Amino acid sequence: MDMIQEGTLKPVIDKELSLEEAAEGLRMMRPRGHGQDRGDAVSETTTLPTAAEIEEKLLKGPFHQWLGLKVLSVGDGTIELKATWRPEMVVNAERGYMHGGILATLVDLTADWALVSKTGRGVPTVDLRVDYHRAGMQGDLIAKGKVVKFGSTLSVAEAEILSEDGKLLASGRGVYMTASPK
Amino acid sequence: MDMIQEGTLKPVIDKELSLEEAAEGLRMMRPRGHGQDRGDAVSETTTLPTAAEIEEKLLKGPFHQWLGLKVLSVGDGTIELKATWRPEMVVNAERGYMHGGILATLVDLTADWALVSKTGRGVPTVDLRVDYHRAGMQGDLIAKGKVVKFGSTLSVAEAEILSEDGKLLASGRGVYMTASPK
Amino acid sequence: MDMIQEGTLKPVIDKELSLEEAAEGLRMMRPRGHGQDRGDAVSETTTLPTAAEIEEKLLKGPFHQWLGLKVLSVGDGTIELKATWRPEMVVNAERGYMHGGILATLVDLTADWALVSKTGRGVPTVDLRVDYHRAGMQGDLIAKGKVVKFGSTLSVAEAEILSEDGKLLASGRGVYMTASPK
Amino acid sequence: MDMIQEGTLKPVIDKELSLEEAAEGLRMMRPRGHGQDRGDAVSETTTLPTAAEIEEKLLKGPFHQWLGLKVLSVGDGTIELKATWRPEMVVNAERGYMHGGILATLVDLTADWALVSKTGRGVPTVDLRVDYHRAGMQGDLIAKGKVVKFGSTLSVAEAEILSEDGKLLASGRGVYMTASPK
Repeated sequence: MDMIQEGTLKPVIDKELSLEEAAEGLRMMRPRGHGQDRGDAVSETTTLPTAAEIEEKLLKGPFHQWLGLKVLSVGDGTIELKATWRPEMVVNAERGYMHGGILATLVDLTADWALVSKTGRGVPTVDLRVDYHRAGMQGDLIAKGKVVKFGSTLSVAEAEILSEDGKLLASGRGVYMTASPK
Repeated sequence: MDMIQEGTLKPVIDKELSLEEAAEGLRMMRPRGHGQDRGDAVSETTTLPTAAEIEEKLLKGPFHQWLGLKVLSVGDGTIELKATWRPEMVVNAERGYMHGGILATLVDLTADWALVSKTGRGVPTVDLRVDYHRAGMQGDLIAKGKVVKFGSTLSVAEAEILSEDGKLLASGRGVYMTASPK
Repeated sequence: MDMIQEGTLKPVIDKELSLEEAAEGLRMMRPRGHGQDRGDAVSETTTLPTAAEIEEKLLKGPFHQWLGLKVLSVGDGTIELKATWRPEMVVNAERGYMHGGILATLVDLTADWALVSKTGRGVPTVDLRVDYHRAGMQGDLIAKGKVVKFGSTLSVAEAEILSEDGKLLASGRGVYMTASPK
Repeated sequence: MDMIQEGTLKPVIDKELSLEEAAEGLRMMRPRGHGQDRGDAVSETTTLPTAAEIEEKLLKGPFHQWLGLKVLSVGDGTIELKATWRPEMVVNAERGYMHGGILATLVDLTADWALVSKTGRGVPTVDLRVDYHRAGMQGDLIAKGKVVKFGSTLSVAEAEILSEDGKLLASGRGVYMTASPK
């Protein structure tokens, strides 16, 4: 790659390079050992982790425990979770509305873990965008995540949060730093 | 306004009307009693609520209690809050990183309550956007909110979340439904 | 509705009311003539506008003409458009990358017009969020829009922008002010 | 850094690493020549580029020419631009509203070039978020950009778009790939 031989990465940050080329530039600069892992077809085609395996990883996080998370299913670039309602989640005690921050949290973590079939674990969130569609009331929550675009440096994934009876409460997307797949 | 006399609101949704005109159309259709309140110069110029008054309102929310919120100051279109760290906020027990959902929650509620000098209370969030800049570690959090644009139907406000030692952890914005100022 | 009889809309802006209840409050305050139109089952089930009809409306906009827009298909809450490449769309003359602003424009207008089966025309954009996945090169663009949530005051819709050979270049969402369905 | 000696980057993508640590991990893996450049205090403190120098770079982009961009001033992490109104920018010929895509384009490019004192040129946009505050009418536009957080891999910057008479029309933020400062 010319720009590296020149001892400069100028083109990486130029509009002369597109986003994916810039990302590719970063990827190519990784140590050999890692680069080999990345292209390893085996790692791409191995059996998906089970819901139980992902749930075990997920529940290492204290806030995930607090949310009472359960992994219902894991697919290739998808995940379905359940969160357990608790009274502290409420923003308005009289009317029982759930705090929007709980729904935002679920969008973040569900989109993040939708990437797990490719990343093997939770990854850092770059940014998060949440649309609120309907108030969450008392009751557990279903969260469905899906990868929009998986990239070697950055990925986009989305999630929907539904009430137990299937009403769409919130949905949104995040950008995640998937700089190094397993 | 012609469109109301015609018994139709077609122009409201047209690109023929700008966003603020559409919002204005909604505002004009409100009952007189409310319309009068809105234009009331007194309500705009009355003394700001005190931090203690806002804290009392804020802490009616169970999740706000859980977050250990304190109101440090309230200005005209600004607010400064403090949230109290607790171990359940952590996403990674080993390293102690705070869950991004906690930071997102603080961006949401701080931007929301930055509007309180105009709204008198918390208002529904339409959408939320959060940028993550640095991991939050153990320690209380400072949250600073500011109104970007106050409108009679929809408003935009922003917030920064900082560590106790002043490092920027996250920042972002929300759109809020301020359909009816007090 | 008690709050209207009281000559006050205070609850509308309270977290005591959810977003959809606040929106519903606004809707209920509309003039009767309009309210009746809204609930009219006939207007919901009438024949979809044709692609030619929508294209005619869309092309009244000078910037839409500049973009060389064509309406490929219109469904219930969906639309598919084509934009015609032109050399002014490029950000980098040497490499030929399309400007991200063109892709953002297409996300905005495609999500907006995905609502057309419900709104009858373009509506004001409240906010827009765009993820860039891959650089756009010389060539026409396909834009697919879909309603995420249609509401009587605010709606969310999303769009994907693809190259002619089907590669995902950008995707995103907007919130639109659908205060008054046709 | 242990993980590199181990020939694996697993921790990079883990929530075990924060966003900035993951970014730092990528940075550390860059070729020496580049790493040295990065920490070079001289490059950080050299004279700012002039408005004329930036304008020359900016206007290499055909769409930037079409927008009639002028660079009014460049600061450390700030920029102020002007765009020249043209009739093709209009979405509604009868009322003269400017297309929201033009405003989105200006938010994107102004936030991007607010980074220029650190990047030396335009960089790839990862994502873009735009709030619309008021319709743009016939007239040139002023665009003010500011860096929110500069990072070695990803940066956040924001922009405001104003009418000639100083009214806030739109504002927003983008995430940019600043993987390699000059």
